[in-house]
Amino acid sequence: MSLTVAFPNDSMRMRFAGFSDRAHLIVWRPGDEVGERINYLVIDHREPIASLARIPPGVVDIVQIDSLGFDGAEQVLPPGTILCNGAGIHEAPTAELAITLTLASQRGWPDLADFQQKRIWASGLTFPGLAGRRVLLIGVGGVGARIARLLEPFDVHLERVGRSARVDLHGQVFALSDLPPLLLHSEIVILALPLTNETRGIMSAELLGRLPRGALIVNVSRGGLIDTEALTERVRKGELRCALDVVDPEPLPIAHPLWSLPGSLISPHLGGRVSGTESESERLVRAQIERLMRLTPPDHIVIST
Amino acid sequence: MSLTVAFPNDSMRMRFAGFSDRAHLIVWRPGDEVGERINYLVIDHREPIASLARIPPGVVDIVQIDSLGFDGAEQVLPPGTILCNGAGIHEAPTAELAITLTLASQRGWPDLADFQQKRIWASGLTFPGLAGRRVLLIGVGGVGARIARLLEPFDVHLERVGRSARVDLHGQVFALSDLPPLLLHSEIVILALPLTNETRGIMSAELLGRLPRGALIVNVSRGGLIDTEALTERVRKGELRCALDVVDPEPLPIAHPLWSLPGSLISPHLGGRVSGTESESERLVRAQIERLMRLTPPDHIVIST
Repeated sequence: MSLTVAFPNDSMRMRFAGFSDRAHLIVWRPGDEVGERINYLVIDHREPIASLARIPPGVVDIVQIDSLGFDGAEQVLPPGTILCNGAGIHEAPTAELAITLTLASQRGWPDLADFQQKRIWASGLTFPGLAGRRVLLIGVGGVGARIARLLEPFDVHLERVGRSARVDLHGQVFALSDLPPLLLHSEIVILALPLTNETRGIMSAELLGRLPRGALIVNVSRGGLIDTEALTERVRKGELRCALDVVDPEPLPIAHPLWSLPGSLISPHLGGRVSGTESESERLVRAQIERLMRLTPPDHIVIST
Repeated sequence: MSLTVAFPNDSMRMRFAGFSDRAHLIVWRPGDEVGERINYLVIDHREPIASLARIPPGVVDIVQIDSLGFDGAEQVLPPGTILCNGAGIHEAPTAELAITLTLASQRGWPDLADFQQKRIWASGLTFPGLAGRRVLLIGVGGVGARIARLLEPFDVHLERVGRSARVDLHGQVFALSDLPPLLLHSEIVILALPLTNETRGIMSAELLGRLPRGALIVNVSRGGLIDTEALTERVRKGELRCALDVVDPEPLPIAHPLWSLPGSLISPHLGGRVSGTESESERLVRAQIERLMRLTPPDHIVIST
């Protein structure tokens, strides 16, 4: 029995050559002409989820994406296909990015970048800093847990929110339904949640309105978690600040005010991708192929219809 | 017996009013006309060290500065005067800034700030990140120890250098004389050292030349620790990157290439100053006055001639 594995390009396929003669490695991308049944299809990390719609039904058994998020996949994945995500690859660098955005905002980078560009030595300025701040972390999954760990030595007052209330090793986890009172005293809100029907637009105009003046919203998850229009309006009024790696829509339109409003820090969906993570992705794919050759189900199944 | 305490302005003096009737609180700044002997003089944090030269001999017993660094004070302090620094106030926020500069550089901010300013959604870029990097921390005093603590959960390979080699609770501390071999494999160098005759220009052209291509130099201490010209030349060639809160000279001249070279991140000597540290400074001054009223020597004496 041989396993047909498809890679998005020949250079990636070559890196798995010599892997085993029981694995038949081909190059195939959604939309390509169909030659044979593909047991395990690896999707290029730059390919949008929508491209899965170009996989004809009955051709692919298992689809592997590189990202953690898979919002929209349910609508486009052919029936009978299993979807696996890139769990474990991106959590650490995504959490690192969340801390980077938080620290940069709290130490004044939206302004300081402007000063550097204009060659202004703006001495005597003070910014709020991170130590001692009340931080609300929404999401306690892989990324959220890692963010909490990185925040630990920074001496913040951390409150955590998950899908449902519970107590874990680190203390109380509040429920999403507890957000209204929690937001009233949160100086920094970090979003580390998957985008689902339950979480879409969770940072609504009403909830954003509960935050104290000057609060910072950090988003490293999905832009759709936030009512972007309401956020933009509050940032414009100087009521909130934001540090966003993800926006809705992406790319952020060139005329969008968030590009240039004071207190707005934008990065272009860097997410969990750092130089060097390619090998983490490859490690995952390699482990998955090994499992399939042992007739073991793949890890990180997120949709199985 | 009454203690004469001088503050740089009336609003600060007022915040200490009602402190005790045995403390006589006045407003006096170096250069003001001399009315009475001052036992404890609080210097405004914006005042440069050079202003201490305007204190006439025999007028002030103890001078309190807000900063940790006091380079140059020995040359200008009147004989017989004690100098106390602001130890304990700024270590935590200075260390926080060092991590901010490190993370921002490792996640691409010199470039990303430029993209935001030009409204370019530069997706697909990758930057090195912090996790897994070899970090060399030079300085293990108050700021350095705090930096090491903040780095802990980021999964870096940390090596520490102090004035002399020793072993402490966290492992090996290398000596300054060990720098040449250590620099050969350091991807990130963080400077957390006082500026002294021993450390001036310690990051010389020769030592900078030992760093691997693409290495990052972070400085939150004093600009004079680095041969700025040599650093600028290497950043210009794309061999090194830098994230500098302190430069030599300050302010950084408007025509200086470090303002705009790719890979150069500049902040205007924010140091340990964040909104809210004023109260930390006040707490220190209050404790010092209490000690003096108990006829106990002040804390944090750094010069006593």
